[in-house]
Amino acid sequence: MTHGMTLTESQGFVPVAPSSGRFRPLGSDEVHITGGFWAERQRVNAAGTLPHIKHWLEREGWLPNFDLAARGTLPAGRRGREFSDSEVYKFLEALSWEIGRTDDQELEEVFRSIVTRAAAAQEPDGYLNTYTGRPGQPARWSDLEWGHELYCLGHLFQAAVARARTRPGSDDGLLTIATRAADLVCDAFGSEGIQSVCGHAVIETGLAELARVTGEPRYLEQARLFIERRGQGTLRQIEWGQQYFQDDMPIRTATVARGHAVRANYLAAGAVDVAVDTGDAELLSALATQWRNTVARRTYITGGQGSHHQDEAFGEDWVLPPDRAYSETCASVASVMLSWRLALALGDAGYSDLVERTLFNVVATSPSTSGTAFYYANTLHQRTPGTPAADDVVSPRAESSLRAPWFEVSCCPPNVARTLASLDAFIATADSEGIQIHQYAASSIRTRLTSGQVVCLEIDTDYPRSGSVRITTPVAIDDPVTLSLRIPPWADGAEVRVHSAGELVTSEVVQPGWAAVRRTFRAGDSVELDLPMEPRVVHPDGRIDSVRGCVAVERGPEVFCLESVDLATASGGAVDDVAAIRLDTSTPIIAKDGAPVVRLLIVQNDDEHPWPYADLDPEPSLASAVEVPLIPYHDWAERGPSTMRVWLPAQ
Amino acid sequence: MTHGMTLTESQGFVPVAPSSGRFRPLGSDEVHITGGFWAERQRVNAAGTLPHIKHWLEREGWLPNFDLAARGTLPAGRRGREFSDSEVYKFLEALSWEIGRTDDQELEEVFRSIVTRAAAAQEPDGYLNTYTGRPGQPARWSDLEWGHELYCLGHLFQAAVARARTRPGSDDGLLTIATRAADLVCDAFGSEGIQSVCGHAVIETGLAELARVTGEPRYLEQARLFIERRGQGTLRQIEWGQQYFQDDMPIRTATVARGHAVRANYLAAGAVDVAVDTGDAELLSALATQWRNTVARRTYITGGQGSHHQDEAFGEDWVLPPDRAYSETCASVASVMLSWRLALALGDAGYSDLVERTLFNVVATSPSTSGTAFYYANTLHQRTPGTPAADDVVSPRAESSLRAPWFEVSCCPPNVARTLASLDAFIATADSEGIQIHQYAASSIRTRLTSGQVVCLEIDTDYPRSGSVRITTPVAIDDPVTLSLRIPPWADGAEVRVHSAGELVTSEVVQPGWAAVRRTFRAGDSVELDLPMEPRVVHPDGRIDSVRGCVAVERGPEVFCLESVDLATASGGAVDDVAAIRLDTSTPIIAKDGAPVVRLLIVQNDDEHPWPYADLDPEPSLASAVEVPLIPYHDWAERGPSTMRVWLPAQ
Repeated sequence: MTHGMTLTESQGFVPVAPSSGRFRPLGSDEVHITGGFWAERQRVNAAGTLPHIKHWLEREGWLPNFDLAARGTLPAGRRGREFSDSEVYKFLEALSWEIGRTDDQELEEVFRSIVTRAAAAQEPDGYLNTYTGRPGQPARWSDLEWGHELYCLGHLFQAAVARARTRPGSDDGLLTIATRAADLVCDAFGSEGIQSVCGHAVIETGLAELARVTGEPRYLEQARLFIERRGQGTLRQIEWGQQYFQDDMPIRTATVARGHAVRANYLAAGAVDVAVDTGDAELLSALATQWRNTVARRTYITGGQGSHHQDEAFGEDWVLPPDRAYSETCASVASVMLSWRLALALGDAGYSDLVERTLFNVVATSPSTSGTAFYYANTLHQRTPGTPAADDVVSPRAESSLRAPWFEVSCCPPNVARTLASLDAFIATADSEGIQIHQYAASSIRTRLTSGQVVCLEIDTDYPRSGSVRITTPVAIDDPVTLSLRIPPWADGAEVRVHSAGELVTSEVVQPGWAAVRRTFRAGDSVELDLPMEPRVVHPDGRIDSVRGCVAVERGPEVFCLESVDLATASGGAVDDVAAIRLDTSTPIIAKDGAPVVRLLIVQNDDEHPWPYADLDPEPSLASAVEVPLIPYHDWAERGPSTMRVWLPAQ
Repeated sequence: MTHGMTLTESQGFVPVAPSSGRFRPLGSDEVHITGGFWAERQRVNAAGTLPHIKHWLEREGWLPNFDLAARGTLPAGRRGREFSDSEVYKFLEALSWEIGRTDDQELEEVFRSIVTRAAAAQEPDGYLNTYTGRPGQPARWSDLEWGHELYCLGHLFQAAVARARTRPGSDDGLLTIATRAADLVCDAFGSEGIQSVCGHAVIETGLAELARVTGEPRYLEQARLFIERRGQGTLRQIEWGQQYFQDDMPIRTATVARGHAVRANYLAAGAVDVAVDTGDAELLSALATQWRNTVARRTYITGGQGSHHQDEAFGEDWVLPPDRAYSETCASVASVMLSWRLALALGDAGYSDLVERTLFNVVATSPSTSGTAFYYANTLHQRTPGTPAADDVVSPRAESSLRAPWFEVSCCPPNVARTLASLDAFIATADSEGIQIHQYAASSIRTRLTSGQVVCLEIDTDYPRSGSVRITTPVAIDDPVTLSLRIPPWADGAEVRVHSAGELVTSEVVQPGWAAVRRTFRAGDSVELDLPMEPRVVHPDGRIDSVRGCVAVERGPEVFCLESVDLATASGGAVDDVAAIRLDTSTPIIAKDGAPVVRLLIVQNDDEHPWPYADLDPEPSLASAVEVPLIPYHDWAERGPSTMRVWLPAQ
């Protein structure tokens, strides 16, 4: 249960650096994504999304709020919601990872200038928030349910941690801002302080990570206090119940995620950090149970979480409506944070299975191809073509028809940005025996194991276009190491072949989970993985009432969908409504240029029926059939207003 | 298109008195429910609900707010939401109908004392609202989106109309309060006044009805202005869109109900009043179209409307999830108001079909047997047993597990009360040719047709327990009159028999719609109707994705459900979760003591499945079968915490 590494000053360019656990994460200093699906998204993130966020933070006043604070003129002129500071901090975190990866000097200047503006807004005692604490504003810590002060600081700490890890040994200001604020939080909320928590979790993981970077045990202890206090009902009762902010029961006794989905996942991520760093096996076990039950009963096929629009919350078990899916982008970002922490702590391949599913089908779905428009909520069924959001307009947050450039609550763009900028760090881990490959992307890896053995790997693949992954060792590995490959649960019949000195050495069909190859490698040796990439028809558990009688189509890690654009093309314009189809399950699904092509029966719907509940079975009258290609869900809504469905009624 | 009656001082004890239309409503001065299903609910309403409401209005301060206003001490000490005044007015309306029916002197005293308290709170210029308009309160008309001032007055006007109709010719204060306030509204919002509308419709129907009672054309004109201004976008954009308060498009161009379901139905009801009284056939036709499309695509099998929890709003077409059904009680009260107005104006039996369905399956579901606890939202699928609400606690409004005594937003209890107290007035109508029976209940009717012919009818039935209805004429009717009976659409094979002088005269199988018998009657003659009361299996339209593969069971006008209590009893305690069943559709449903008994196959659910989307069809493993009685949906949750479902997955 320890990766045998003493944490030194450099923890690597990693978003999370647990003090112990099954695997040690390899950061973007050791892993570089070099091409393919995710490299393209990282390119767009840097070229499109980061400047886009900067533009909107200035335009909407969320950055200038810091200048007003520094000038002492607040609250006059302040713009944005109570938590708008946090978007600036998430942007700083995204910049930190990106600068760490690429050493981009233009972004470095942007970063430094924002840090200067934030520093100027900090008060002498370390307090930092543009919405509260001044005359004419709500008093400090006066509204823990909705004030979001600690939440904003949690994101500040995460940004400072990202910067400290990617610029180890030097502090260009952000870490100082963060530690001054953290010291104040410990004074105000310590064992003798305010005996409550923030209505929106995230400071827990922020403090625990800040403790890892600084070595300051007070921060970890404060994170622990916040975790233990949660669920004691110290927050006010609200209309949606105290479960909204997970204050309904202690985190140790909960068995499943509930309430606001972003809050729930951030909180659990922080609790894993605390459990790992304090050696609290009972807490870690409780979190693993919650994760397991949440995945088994409260997660969409896309990996998305949270089915309520009303309170952006998890529904009860099996309440996963596709058309009123909320599946907030940020809940998925938070889910990736949680799953990754559990993967590092416990090692089960299932955690990275969910990370992969969530990255491909929610995180990659939210941003547009240009990286300048986003989904806040990610519906699985669009019934009516949406109205495009104008380029220069702030949209309501839960508009789920077409991606929008910015939202009144605009947590998703910077959250996607920081995730994509740090994505190299989710590819691989190490333990004393060797290397584990969690995600497949063209990449190069160079790390030193605790044995002193240097391991270099070149990974060649165009996954998920194909399922072929070739891992070569450009430099010989003289001591035996274990190369572990994550085999996804859908990869029935996956095969691993080892080539040495140009010869096929072994060839083996492997089971889902970790497939391990232990050996020495000569320079140029390779391990090849073949994942089966035939389209798969997937049936839902019978308890998910909202998709009874439907199937979905997957291929590799991607969930596919039917978009009306393709239906219209295939039917020569005769049918353009995804409500009007049944999937002909008697015809096998074929793949054409990588895309699953399905045979759909066209339903003649009778619009004249005055009452939609009839005494006779309304067997649809099926007029004709049409062959239609499905597209990856993450690619939908890029061709104008359309209707779309992931779940296809089966005939 | 006119019922040929000149409206005189007495309009009858009717909730709505259109100036023209296909049918003239018979009020509770002409129709008395004498026994059976609705008489029992009216008894409980008077004995249980009315005192209960009085108690909570006092306890929560919503009535004492008027005393504070009169003392001039507001805003200090004011309690309740911005619209709490309206609950007092709805209570006054309920009292008016009940006093009209029964002449109850105790209630009369309650009524008079509240009117005195309200009168004392009215300002010299007629303004009346305890939440706004004083120093320290929001200014008058300053927040039309959320202020609810005009909404509250709309309910005040309805109360005054109810009192004026049930005490014709005398004004004990309420009508004066109302007309003073209405005059102020006309001054403030007239053609030269504020060019906007209230965020919550209801004043439209209140003003139109007040015009009918007083003969004041200004009130009708003001109602017309409010109807025409709606949809011009004069209300601010909000997160849920301007459709929330129907300000997204002119009411003439809308084709279906949308936005907040209570608002939508109140608005449409007021628009019918305006259309009828101004002779605006185009508007009336638009409303009929909206009703038709809303019923065909946006209405639950119970008649309930509004599928969103988030904004208490209609969903898009076919979005009718049973487990996240909102189906607010008040939306159904408002739907009955709308349907009844259309029935009177246009005469189609379909309007009263929906009134019947909604009354039996939503309005009768909300209150408990004792009339002292209510559903605010009416779910069609309860997945987890709820926690009983304590007798003395105010509940969150959308808690949908067990009925609660009172809510923070407590519109439903007084809305149910005013509906039940006025229910006699929904039984029958007249036109120049005769009488139409819209609802079947043991009752006696005495009215005079425009021809001068007095018609007395005694209706004997225990409907919906049985489908036998016997209508006798205790007094001879010498001129031929038409007796029209509404045959519901489910009543396939309904039969009408006429007996005269003890002999069977005619016997006829009739079709859904209006079945007419035109003849003279001797004293003691009778018309007998037999409605088929076998349980029916009902299938949903294939476009309602959330209930695909499910069926519901109906009998007569009642929708039935499976409650876990009965499942547990029938299975000897082996199964108590309504998620664990499939309906065996190969076995006919039998009726036992009036209750449909279904054969259910028990599903062995596998709780250990780590991911609920599998490559193989998860055909449920069916362990055993059990015969279980279903209960009327309106009776559920009267036996402690339970799970329940209306839609049964079919095997």
